[in-house]
Amino acid sequence: MSQSVQTLEGWYVLHDFRTIDWAAWKSLSADERGQIQEELFSLYSEWKTVEEKKEGSFGVFSVVGHKADLVFMHLRPTLEELQDVETSFNKTRFAEFTVPSYSYVSVVELSTYVHSDVNPDTDPYIQGRLKPVLPKTKHICFYPMNKRRSGNDNWYMLPMEERSSMMRSHGMIGRKYAGQVIQIISGSVGLDDWEWGVTLFADDPVTYKKLVYEMRFDEVSARYGDFGSFFVGNRLEEDQLKQLFAI
Amino acid sequence: MSQSVQTLEGWYVLHDFRTIDWAAWKSLSADERGQIQEELFSLYSEWKTVEEKKEGSFGVFSVVGHKADLVFMHLRPTLEELQDVETSFNKTRFAEFTVPSYSYVSVVELSTYVHSDVNPDTDPYIQGRLKPVLPKTKHICFYPMNKRRSGNDNWYMLPMEERSSMMRSHGMIGRKYAGQVIQIISGSVGLDDWEWGVTLFADDPVTYKKLVYEMRFDEVSARYGDFGSFFVGNRLEEDQLKQLFAI
Amino acid sequence: MSQSVQTLEGWYVLHDFRTIDWAAWKSLSADERGQIQEELFSLYSEWKTVEEKKEGSFGVFSVVGHKADLVFMHLRPTLEELQDVETSFNKTRFAEFTVPSYSYVSVVELSTYVHSDVNPDTDPYIQGRLKPVLPKTKHICFYPMNKRRSGNDNWYMLPMEERSSMMRSHGMIGRKYAGQVIQIISGSVGLDDWEWGVTLFADDPVTYKKLVYEMRFDEVSARYGDFGSFFVGNRLEEDQLKQLFAI
Amino acid sequence: MSQSVQTLEGWYVLHDFRTIDWAAWKSLSADERGQIQEELFSLYSEWKTVEEKKEGSFGVFSVVGHKADLVFMHLRPTLEELQDVETSFNKTRFAEFTVPSYSYVSVVELSTYVHSDVNPDTDPYIQGRLKPVLPKTKHICFYPMNKRRSGNDNWYMLPMEERSSMMRSHGMIGRKYAGQVIQIISGSVGLDDWEWGVTLFADDPVTYKKLVYEMRFDEVSARYGDFGSFFVGNRLEEDQLKQLFAI
Amino acid sequence: MSQSVQTLEGWYVLHDFRTIDWAAWKSLSADERGQIQEELFSLYSEWKTVEEKKEGSFGVFSVVGHKADLVFMHLRPTLEELQDVETSFNKTRFAEFTVPSYSYVSVVELSTYVHSDVNPDTDPYIQGRLKPVLPKTKHICFYPMNKRRSGNDNWYMLPMEERSSMMRSHGMIGRKYAGQVIQIISGSVGLDDWEWGVTLFADDPVTYKKLVYEMRFDEVSARYGDFGSFFVGNRLEEDQLKQLFAI
Repeated sequence: MSQSVQTLEGWYVLHDFRTIDWAAWKSLSADERGQIQEELFSLYSEWKTVEEKKEGSFGVFSVVGHKADLVFMHLRPTLEELQDVETSFNKTRFAEFTVPSYSYVSVVELSTYVHSDVNPDTDPYIQGRLKPVLPKTKHICFYPMNKRRSGNDNWYMLPMEERSSMMRSHGMIGRKYAGQVIQIISGSVGLDDWEWGVTLFADDPVTYKKLVYEMRFDEVSARYGDFGSFFVGNRLEEDQLKQLFAI
Repeated sequence: MSQSVQTLEGWYVLHDFRTIDWAAWKSLSADERGQIQEELFSLYSEWKTVEEKKEGSFGVFSVVGHKADLVFMHLRPTLEELQDVETSFNKTRFAEFTVPSYSYVSVVELSTYVHSDVNPDTDPYIQGRLKPVLPKTKHICFYPMNKRRSGNDNWYMLPMEERSSMMRSHGMIGRKYAGQVIQIISGSVGLDDWEWGVTLFADDPVTYKKLVYEMRFDEVSARYGDFGSFFVGNRLEEDQLKQLFAI
Repeated sequence: MSQSVQTLEGWYVLHDFRTIDWAAWKSLSADERGQIQEELFSLYSEWKTVEEKKEGSFGVFSVVGHKADLVFMHLRPTLEELQDVETSFNKTRFAEFTVPSYSYVSVVELSTYVHSDVNPDTDPYIQGRLKPVLPKTKHICFYPMNKRRSGNDNWYMLPMEERSSMMRSHGMIGRKYAGQVIQIISGSVGLDDWEWGVTLFADDPVTYKKLVYEMRFDEVSARYGDFGSFFVGNRLEEDQLKQLFAI
Repeated sequence: MSQSVQTLEGWYVLHDFRTIDWAAWKSLSADERGQIQEELFSLYSEWKTVEEKKEGSFGVFSVVGHKADLVFMHLRPTLEELQDVETSFNKTRFAEFTVPSYSYVSVVELSTYVHSDVNPDTDPYIQGRLKPVLPKTKHICFYPMNKRRSGNDNWYMLPMEERSSMMRSHGMIGRKYAGQVIQIISGSVGLDDWEWGVTLFADDPVTYKKLVYEMRFDEVSARYGDFGSFFVGNRLEEDQLKQLFAI
Repeated sequence: MSQSVQTLEGWYVLHDFRTIDWAAWKSLSADERGQIQEELFSLYSEWKTVEEKKEGSFGVFSVVGHKADLVFMHLRPTLEELQDVETSFNKTRFAEFTVPSYSYVSVVELSTYVHSDVNPDTDPYIQGRLKPVLPKTKHICFYPMNKRRSGNDNWYMLPMEERSSMMRSHGMIGRKYAGQVIQIISGSVGLDDWEWGVTLFADDPVTYKKLVYEMRFDEVSARYGDFGSFFVGNRLEEDQLKQLFAI
């Protein structure tokens, strides 16, 4: 029984960051705000239904600081469906009170050993990781990243064995945080401006700091990691969303 | 019968990225939206006629994420005609509901072996590639790029043979994706901020990721490629455009 | 009795930078401005109460130059509370007259020797530094920073002893300014775009220049420090805030 | 009879890039648009008179793509006059329908051998190049550039002979395009963000690509050239400007 | 009698760059514009009085190009006073017709030999340089700069003697322009985003180009200088300001 490392792709992912125009939102009457929320929560229900039917997943989170107020994270089987989710939101009345501040387009990616007698297209474990239901932790952390190609620090010029060995030791650090942090890696080469998106889920946000900091001393990150913006926030269930919207 | 490598230029290209002002669009009456679309589709018909007469080509695509909502890709024989296309669009009422978010100016470029008994100005194969009709695939991917000039990684200081040999092996990777991805390379040295624009057409967007990722390990990309933003989207036929505009 | 160096985390920190829309502010009647300030100062009282109960801390400062007019610095035990502080401010009427110009999310960090018979979770000195009351000096200086990972200047590839020894000599410079400058270091790896935030408090702003300049010749900064924007301003007590708002 | 290389300065140059607010422009009545154009063309006449009196020169060009819609290029003997040209335009009604999108301030520069019996301040050939009438070609291309100062590629650390010899071979390439491209070099060290501005005039815009691309392999560009944004457009005579403005 | 090199600090400096909203300004009646100018010139008189009392200095200049229309340069003994100057301006009606486009916060800095029998706090020559009256030349040039810390070009890792010797030869170039250019160096380490601000005053703006270009070949600039944006403009006396405001 042999096995090989394969890179597998699953659902497409959209991280859709929005800033709320609070002045405009507050200028509405309570009635209007109520109607607008109703429309939004009806869309929210559709997203839930999709998740229940295992045809996608989603999460809504606040974002701390000026970069955004909210991030909607959506997973779907096709880019067309992802576009539809984005457009449907853009057509809601609520969207009029938000400004798109950032977004990220990627596809869930799994680099894994696959046994020769396993069909990754049907294997339940692999399929579960490629088409994940987003964890319901209290906090989210998102950042995009590249492998560096700079002078002597050029990841893509390294022999495969060296890259594999470094990635293994990198994975070891991740494993120490098992139970504390769940991560979803999505590939975005050819899809967005960085090569990967990393989404971390945890109940204690200090673990983001500890994990990312520990990894930074690992050669993969220290010499070969380039990082974009970091976004951190709190998961918002319907009730918390309503509380956020309440004036 | 001898042959030589020649760089040939064809039609000028404009990638015109637009973000839709959804709040303003939705504030219109259905009637007004109808009239505005009518005007836009009349322009669309003109573009079609131009394409049918082989005097240019075009495609309209959605763009996933916040970078843009639409990209209009136009090809024309002269820069003046390209400017006219842009200006005509700017004068439509629909343009009032869009914000130009990015654009790219380039000219279709073909680096190819030309046999001494072939006149590239009349050869049908070469002319077809220099003045292409845009493929009708489901998805588009666009990104601009440079060849790096940085310390020891300076493409333009390499001997020609070395560059040719690297480009050949680079082309080999591309050939593996024949049938899955069609690419149009356009040169923009002296025309826009990067040296080339790459437009990829495919029915399955995961092939963008696979192709660009595989190429990244190729020395041409690994050591000598610098990349701008990546834009990915879905082709919109008239019906799909109407669906996008429907409120 | 043994001891070890530990990195400890305390309260979460939000630096919330705002630019005032003076034209809109001035367009209000004196009455309206009065009511809006009343609401803001009622929030200010809540912040004060939190500080008195040792459940957080805060400071309000002007910012000189175009980058911002005000910075609100808040410390809280959890990210949720920090988000609440931000959202509560966003819902005030005063916030309508400000534009968020920058922000920084981090967590107070202390790298210190901890004796084996000390429990850092209860030790009053350590707890006082992890959950500090912001100093009431006349001026503030804030800047984010990274440790460099560039070619031969890669902090994260250095052996621990070398890093420790450099940090010690770095600390020596800081100690010379004891009594003149108080600094709060907060970590933001995994939380925001830089690795640390540095907030300096002093009565004479020239000491910011002297301290940061002297440190720049220290190898830690000279070879390994990358710095973001510097923000400098004056502490505003209630009376000074009122004076700022007066037209 | 001896000669020496001298760097001579001529007229100051302003490249004034503007984006048209088409929605606002179209919202005007035909009458209003007529009056606004009349005012603009009266300014245009003044510019023409200045050019005829050899007290300056100017050109108006479209810009393809989103970077700008128009560029006004002005040459004047003093910085005050250049400021006046800019301010006069800003005070027109037409300016209300444009947004300044970029600009460049420089001074025409000529590095040339001067024979000892030639007075550059009166020599007609030299004066003609320092105080040029802008060529009436169909297309313009503008880009700013620096000589690189980076690690081993530091132009300013090279011995003068090496720089001269490289510049000579660089000039050779330019000469091959004589008759196809006319270039005006203007210096902007101490005046704007890059060290030089390059303005190319040609009837066939593909020559921009060919010229700049060929030069890129020249060591001066390959190792020592850093380039800003490239702007390309079409010359607009009064009639073409009117056509652009017509709704 | 011994002497030592000392770095001395004088007045705080604010460069406050503003873009005029011409459309809004022109929409006012002549009466309103008159009243707004009256208020501005009353502030201007206060600035003049401060200068006459030797409690600060100021200058108003136009800025050529799109980066700004005006720069107000203010010097004051404390950061609080500098903030007051900025806030007072922000509260004028004229400020409503301007947009802050850039600013720079620094403190006048003098690195000089001080004889052991000289008290720099009272020495008239030193005090005159630390608390200067801005020269009344026709033109201004401002740019911020850093000393580079990049690979082998790391200013802050050089031995002091090497730095001193390079700065001496750098100073020699400056001295050649004595009588043509007056420069004010202000330090901004710990105060703003770059390490120094350089403000040059001259009657002939070509001297900015000649001086900065000649210095660029000096090792201090060639290897160790990183430069921000360059702003160049014309001094505006009250009459010229009125002319600028006239519609």
